[in-house]
Amino acid sequence: MTSPPEPAPARPGLPRAAVVGTGLIGGSIGLALRARGWHVTGRDADPARADRAKAIGALDVVGSDPRAEVTFVATPVGAVVTEAAAVLEHPDAPPDAVVTDVAGVKGPVAGRLAHPRFVGGHPMAGSEQVGVDGADADLFVGATWVLTPTAATDPGAYARLRAVLSELGADVVALSPEQHDTLVAMVSHVPHLAAATLMNLADRAAEEHAALLRLAAGGFRDMTRVAAGQPEIWPDVCAQNAGAIVAALDDLVDGLSQMRDRVAAGDRTGILEVLARAASARRSLPAAAVRPERLAELRVPIPDRPGLIAEITTLASDLGVNIDDIEIAHSAEGERGVLVLVVDADAVERLHDALADRGHRSAARPLA
Amino acid sequence: MTSPPEPAPARPGLPRAAVVGTGLIGGSIGLALRARGWHVTGRDADPARADRAKAIGALDVVGSDPRAEVTFVATPVGAVVTEAAAVLEHPDAPPDAVVTDVAGVKGPVAGRLAHPRFVGGHPMAGSEQVGVDGADADLFVGATWVLTPTAATDPGAYARLRAVLSELGADVVALSPEQHDTLVAMVSHVPHLAAATLMNLADRAAEEHAALLRLAAGGFRDMTRVAAGQPEIWPDVCAQNAGAIVAALDDLVDGLSQMRDRVAAGDRTGILEVLARAASARRSLPAAAVRPERLAELRVPIPDRPGLIAEITTLASDLGVNIDDIEIAHSAEGERGVLVLVVDADAVERLHDALADRGHRSAARPLA
Repeated sequence: MTSPPEPAPARPGLPRAAVVGTGLIGGSIGLALRARGWHVTGRDADPARADRAKAIGALDVVGSDPRAEVTFVATPVGAVVTEAAAVLEHPDAPPDAVVTDVAGVKGPVAGRLAHPRFVGGHPMAGSEQVGVDGADADLFVGATWVLTPTAATDPGAYARLRAVLSELGADVVALSPEQHDTLVAMVSHVPHLAAATLMNLADRAAEEHAALLRLAAGGFRDMTRVAAGQPEIWPDVCAQNAGAIVAALDDLVDGLSQMRDRVAAGDRTGILEVLARAASARRSLPAAAVRPERLAELRVPIPDRPGLIAEITTLASDLGVNIDDIEIAHSAEGERGVLVLVVDADAVERLHDALADRGHRSAARPLA
Repeated sequence: MTSPPEPAPARPGLPRAAVVGTGLIGGSIGLALRARGWHVTGRDADPARADRAKAIGALDVVGSDPRAEVTFVATPVGAVVTEAAAVLEHPDAPPDAVVTDVAGVKGPVAGRLAHPRFVGGHPMAGSEQVGVDGADADLFVGATWVLTPTAATDPGAYARLRAVLSELGADVVALSPEQHDTLVAMVSHVPHLAAATLMNLADRAAEEHAALLRLAAGGFRDMTRVAAGQPEIWPDVCAQNAGAIVAALDDLVDGLSQMRDRVAAGDRTGILEVLARAASARRSLPAAAVRPERLAELRVPIPDRPGLIAEITTLASDLGVNIDDIEIAHSAEGERGVLVLVVDADAVERLHDALADRGHRSAARPLA
């Protein structure tokens, strides 16, 4: 019997990592690791995709590396258990090798991979650019990366993986698989399903007069934007996180039914209480996945004037003020709005004053 | 008995308008009319506010003008009927004088103002800048302005008001008061209440670990943004449009309950069908209250790099390409995203090519 060909040896002295699945996330992991001195071996169910990952510099070698210190299984969730188990059980695996995955739902994986050297993970980063051509060595800098250790996890394995992710610039948060799934159901899956439901209702309400959706104001556009995304991923997401999604939808239906009863009963105090609590919570929501105490928000009313956004963003650039986030907060109605810039707290005063010198009123506040 | 002082006479030859309530909308109407050669008289329940409106040029005269050709009642909805009736019934009112209002709910007003010379209205324009200091002569240019004539309305009065609003640059849409209220419940009021409900649920879910809301991705931030607005307006809005809001909330609860059942039953086809329909409807939603055939959308992936937004918007400016709308479409997760520019369809190719010359991939599509 002939042994399978040995993968090309790592350059001596370099730490070794492996990536299984070289799409956007797997490719970005490869780029990020190589940029930090790792030797990266990777493969994909689609060999052309692995070749492409090597071509853009995300891999040193196409293939498997059973001796890798860390293996990232970056396949769709359906393939994670099989792929991770194969790596964990490989006879050549070093005793301290760690295996992780990047799937967006953690419970189903954790339940079937109770191994000391497996630590489930979910990098909260991504991009609309699907595929390895959107890969980026800095994708995880400042991003939250959830790890979901369980009772079966060896603390040493967890610590080693955590150190690697920190090296990539990620901010690691540990949650139980169930906490993770409940939370993403509430802040990601159910909002998406609600946006789609709202969009369809409005579309039906405006059916007789399609032009009437021109009345849809900025708030509606903001709320339904996610509904324009890829519909085909949702049957899988709903299947994988069904329990948490059903529970969160039940909570949402309850909350909306209570709101309906308050409106029907003319309960002004109750309505105000709900809205005030939400306003306070939303204003406290960090604008970006970074420590909010370092950032401040600057709101600049912008009439619809050519070049104004360029003028303001260029001014920030000229002053050396990095724009961490930018958005137009549309008013409750119509298309006029306020340009919201999220910048370093240290720089906000400088930008505010420079805007004032140029006749732009703006209001700054720290992101609490 | 002494007559009340006659208001200062209009300059001869100028058409005469009156504004009751000189906040943001009333002030903007005054500025817009005066910029187009009208003589504008106005007052406010708060005299200081009327004086301020005159100081910024929104009024020629503080006071009443019973002989005005058009009177805009721009007070809160609770005062509309009394103020409009007083103007309509004034003995000096010319036989062809038109009276309108700008309240965001039309049914309650229409039911109590069945007068041939009253035409209810709702300009779909506004700004986060509350108060007359945010007033702008061009606030209504390109904005949708709904008029709600009823069986009682004189067609001549409707035509005269419509002509004035067109002069201000508005795009006039006629709806019945009930159609208007149903539609704004669905595209404005209920989305807001749903955003607040979602925000509170997520806040509660993350209660034990406040930092966990850092997991809230771009989609969640988009969906809940409106919930940060002024809570104190909502008891009034809910009271005035209670019927339509309750009906729309019932529809939303039904839709979400059906979605919940589909997820619980693992109905992949049903889930995909709902999401696909919503994606199609959302992609067809005009990005701005303008004729969509004139606009195109350009999507530019943006890594988090200082100065990049300035570079792109300045490039547009240099090319003479007006940015009708700008937003960062955050990816489903994380903070990286795509800069979405809405520009004139004629100019999109030019901007696309210039971006390509500078190494930025971008994708253009017409707003259908």
